[in-house]
Amino acid sequence: MNNHNKRDWKSKLHEIIYEADTPAGKLFDIVLLVFILASILLVMLESVSWIDAKYHYWLNLGEWIVTILFTIEYIARIITVKKPLKYIFSFYGIVDFLSTVPKYLSLIFMGTHALVALRALRLLRIFRILKLARYLGASNHLTSAIKASRAKISVFLFAVIIAAIIFGTLMYLIEGEENGFTNIPKSVYWCIVTLTTVGFGDIAPQTPLGQLIAAIIMVMGYGIIAVPTGIVSAEYTKSSNDSAKKKESEKAKLNTQSCQNCLAENHKDNAEYCYNCGHNLHLE
Amino acid sequence: MNNHNKRDWKSKLHEIIYEADTPAGKLFDIVLLVFILASILLVMLESVSWIDAKYHYWLNLGEWIVTILFTIEYIARIITVKKPLKYIFSFYGIVDFLSTVPKYLSLIFMGTHALVALRALRLLRIFRILKLARYLGASNHLTSAIKASRAKISVFLFAVIIAAIIFGTLMYLIEGEENGFTNIPKSVYWCIVTLTTVGFGDIAPQTPLGQLIAAIIMVMGYGIIAVPTGIVSAEYTKSSNDSAKKKESEKAKLNTQSCQNCLAENHKDNAEYCYNCGHNLHLE
Amino acid sequence: MNNHNKRDWKSKLHEIIYEADTPAGKLFDIVLLVFILASILLVMLESVSWIDAKYHYWLNLGEWIVTILFTIEYIARIITVKKPLKYIFSFYGIVDFLSTVPKYLSLIFMGTHALVALRALRLLRIFRILKLARYLGASNHLTSAIKASRAKISVFLFAVIIAAIIFGTLMYLIEGEENGFTNIPKSVYWCIVTLTTVGFGDIAPQTPLGQLIAAIIMVMGYGIIAVPTGIVSAEYTKSSNDSAKKKESEKAKLNTQSCQNCLAENHKDNAEYCYNCGHNLHLE
Amino acid sequence: MNNHNKRDWKSKLHEIIYEADTPAGKLFDIVLLVFILASILLVMLESVSWIDAKYHYWLNLGEWIVTILFTIEYIARIITVKKPLKYIFSFYGIVDFLSTVPKYLSLIFMGTHALVALRALRLLRIFRILKLARYLGASNHLTSAIKASRAKISVFLFAVIIAAIIFGTLMYLIEGEENGFTNIPKSVYWCIVTLTTVGFGDIAPQTPLGQLIAAIIMVMGYGIIAVPTGIVSAEYTKSSNDSAKKKESEKAKLNTQSCQNCLAENHKDNAEYCYNCGHNLHLE
Repeated sequence: MNNHNKRDWKSKLHEIIYEADTPAGKLFDIVLLVFILASILLVMLESVSWIDAKYHYWLNLGEWIVTILFTIEYIARIITVKKPLKYIFSFYGIVDFLSTVPKYLSLIFMGTHALVALRALRLLRIFRILKLARYLGASNHLTSAIKASRAKISVFLFAVIIAAIIFGTLMYLIEGEENGFTNIPKSVYWCIVTLTTVGFGDIAPQTPLGQLIAAIIMVMGYGIIAVPTGIVSAEYTKSSNDSAKKKESEKAKLNTQSCQNCLAENHKDNAEYCYNCGHNLHLE
Repeated sequence: MNNHNKRDWKSKLHEIIYEADTPAGKLFDIVLLVFILASILLVMLESVSWIDAKYHYWLNLGEWIVTILFTIEYIARIITVKKPLKYIFSFYGIVDFLSTVPKYLSLIFMGTHALVALRALRLLRIFRILKLARYLGASNHLTSAIKASRAKISVFLFAVIIAAIIFGTLMYLIEGEENGFTNIPKSVYWCIVTLTTVGFGDIAPQTPLGQLIAAIIMVMGYGIIAVPTGIVSAEYTKSSNDSAKKKESEKAKLNTQSCQNCLAENHKDNAEYCYNCGHNLHLE
Repeated sequence: MNNHNKRDWKSKLHEIIYEADTPAGKLFDIVLLVFILASILLVMLESVSWIDAKYHYWLNLGEWIVTILFTIEYIARIITVKKPLKYIFSFYGIVDFLSTVPKYLSLIFMGTHALVALRALRLLRIFRILKLARYLGASNHLTSAIKASRAKISVFLFAVIIAAIIFGTLMYLIEGEENGFTNIPKSVYWCIVTLTTVGFGDIAPQTPLGQLIAAIIMVMGYGIIAVPTGIVSAEYTKSSNDSAKKKESEKAKLNTQSCQNCLAENHKDNAEYCYNCGHNLHLE
Repeated sequence: MNNHNKRDWKSKLHEIIYEADTPAGKLFDIVLLVFILASILLVMLESVSWIDAKYHYWLNLGEWIVTILFTIEYIARIITVKKPLKYIFSFYGIVDFLSTVPKYLSLIFMGTHALVALRALRLLRIFRILKLARYLGASNHLTSAIKASRAKISVFLFAVIIAAIIFGTLMYLIEGEENGFTNIPKSVYWCIVTLTTVGFGDIAPQTPLGQLIAAIIMVMGYGIIAVPTGIVSAEYTKSSNDSAKKKESEKAKLNTQSCQNCLAENHKDNAEYCYNCGHNLHLE
């Protein structure tokens, strides 16, 4: 009996923590979201040295409150779930652990405090809490468009990286160490900076030949950005058209009747008589 | 009688100021537009120190003229409108107030003069005056495409910001204060600069690991720009197709016969009998 | 008779210079293209100081040759055209004049030599010579897509400029002269640099509030680039679909016959007998 | 008999090296891929001075192993192919030669060692080995979309380059050598950097007029990126639609009855008589 009660209590807590359809579950999610955002804000403010100097006591207090609440949540999640190990080693389980433990570690080891910043990873839970995908529209063409384009865009990005390695090596040979292209990895990094049209300018080609090749890389980068855009755009149009057609055909199927006299089909929705033979469609 | 005349005078002024369909209203809008542009130009020129040093007297004079005219316009708007409070606290009401008052404040308080620059906000009135949307074409697919994409693009930009916070925090941990990533907000700012492919270069990663992650952020930013573009492009195509279909179906309606018996319309193209009453359509 | 001969000679020269359909006209265009490219190359090389120091004599000689040939061409164009004034004040007439005269001016005035660089404008003639538009495909959807999008893209760019003025003024107020935003025009310039995701980094916000607004500008710029892309992409699809439909319907019209017996239409292309009544379609 | 055996041995080796359908061929390709990636990694690590200082012996050893294996592969490719000269002077033949020979040259000449970096070109073989195109989907709309857009994008990029030359020359005249625009080629390079929205910031306009023109170039660059994107996107949609239509029409073929008299197929959906022989289709 006691055991039964305990299980009841557990399953209720499970419902609150893991599901969002009950009022208590919704409230839990909102409170969790507020605490995640607050913890991120605390970490951010603490990293600004003059704010930390002035309000260190309050920031530290706030962090301990957040840490303890996160610890309680973490333990509650482990207790209420059926397979605790599965949760612990799941993506969100690891993130929850990493965002809680550094504060405790900072009591023992110096310097580990900065790892509190890992708490930013908890932001990813926002996607789960808000179920943002729902905002994207019921039919969710975007998700299916991105899924359909994923393979193509991966190949595309793979080709971009190969181009960056080849051109980066070339630039290393041409520009050399004296112009900032100190080694090939750095040169490849510069090439990615240029190809993606970011262009920091911390490293920039100085020799005429280097600048010529840089110009080629840029124009290339400017031109090939058209490829992923074209893919997503076309896939999105397709997925959106497909669903429109599906709806239409479903509608057509539901509304169609055939004439009892001449068997003609595809009558108008509000037809009373067959367009082919004039037979009353609703006669029984 | 006097009161009636006064109301007439008010309603005429209202027509001139708030409507643009009468010749007087059009003239008012054009004059207003010229003065707004002139006031922006004055503010711009005054901010250039050598121009201000040379022509301070004339710039100041011009600003006072503009300020007094804007004041008269502001008062006239309040007087002529039926619900003055609604105008005063409307977006354009606040903008009109903020663009007029700093010049007066500069007489009393030192240093408030720079706020005259807020006048630039009046530029937003251009959208109202020119009714720019009209240029976008009668059917205005663009507006409906942007409206349809708004929610999706918001979610997308939201995801971009979350990515910026997570990667920004990561870069703060990796690069640290000695390489310019002095605190997390700055690091997140750098991440947005990189993800949007702007790339100022005032802060740039120096460690190999930092450069590797920077490269990942860049390629990501380069790839995901395809998403909003794809959405707008597809929505625009859809909205443009929808209107084309609508036109076609309207055209179809125009070309269809009506039943001589019951006057029903919208028969199928190859119909022999009226779908509504069963009357032979081709009987003469 | 002499006068007649002269006119013949003139009209022949006109044909060579202004038309490209005869072998002589084609040859003239190719030679002109080579000389334009050569003159651009000369100007470029001369601007590189160490090349100019080494090969000044040869570069100068080459430029005089090109200048004299361009002068002859310019005079020939004036002589052979029917309305010389119209040519002289046309866009290409002015460009031709501006690309020829600076070399002569350099004999009289010092320092005017740099204007030889205006010769680069002659490159625009390439569009005419190569008739590049032809490469874009016979149906030329691209041109019609760009034409259809022009008005919308102008409004869009206009909105970008207004946003740049408003945000630029705001940044001037926030960042001030000490952080490089010395005056509003410069601040607006910075805003355009940021909004278009170019990001030179010669000016960069230093205050936290300035960086926050910069981040908003960047994300905005990153998001709104989707708009012109979406427009062109959709218009191009539309124009391409329209022409496809047109072709199809033309094809359909050409290939359609009606049965002499039952008047049924829309027979298959290779039909011998009417699908409706079985009458031989080719019977006469 | 010996000769016959030898030819057998050769053709077997040929199968392993050049084909990828047999298990041995697949294994060879995977091993080759691993060695190419290892050789790139070695070259990259060696270019980082502190890594080279520490592990020079092992890096050098690794490079010699890779070089000897590549040499064996190169010789094997020449021996087994029917027309060795065709392979030697093919693109991949030259790349294979260039990626093998610098290590040997470094024994004789000093300083040629850096050319080992040319090995990065072997990365291009990845496209062949992985046959990446297969990942792009069976129907491969992307390839056909890029092919269809190639001519148009070339013209577009050509126009971008002409614009860069004209605006670059203009900026050289306006900004001059004192602001970093030391010569026209450099100025054109800057213009490409700006037009493609890369924006290094190593050179930046200082004069107000220069900044105005820079702003125009940027807005132009920001606007015209829409063109290639629109082309690829539309072509991809088209190619994807075409294949969908093709599939549909093939499907239509499958569902259509054949005439019992003449066995003709592809009748109209509502056909009563065979279009080929006039036989009644519905007679039993």
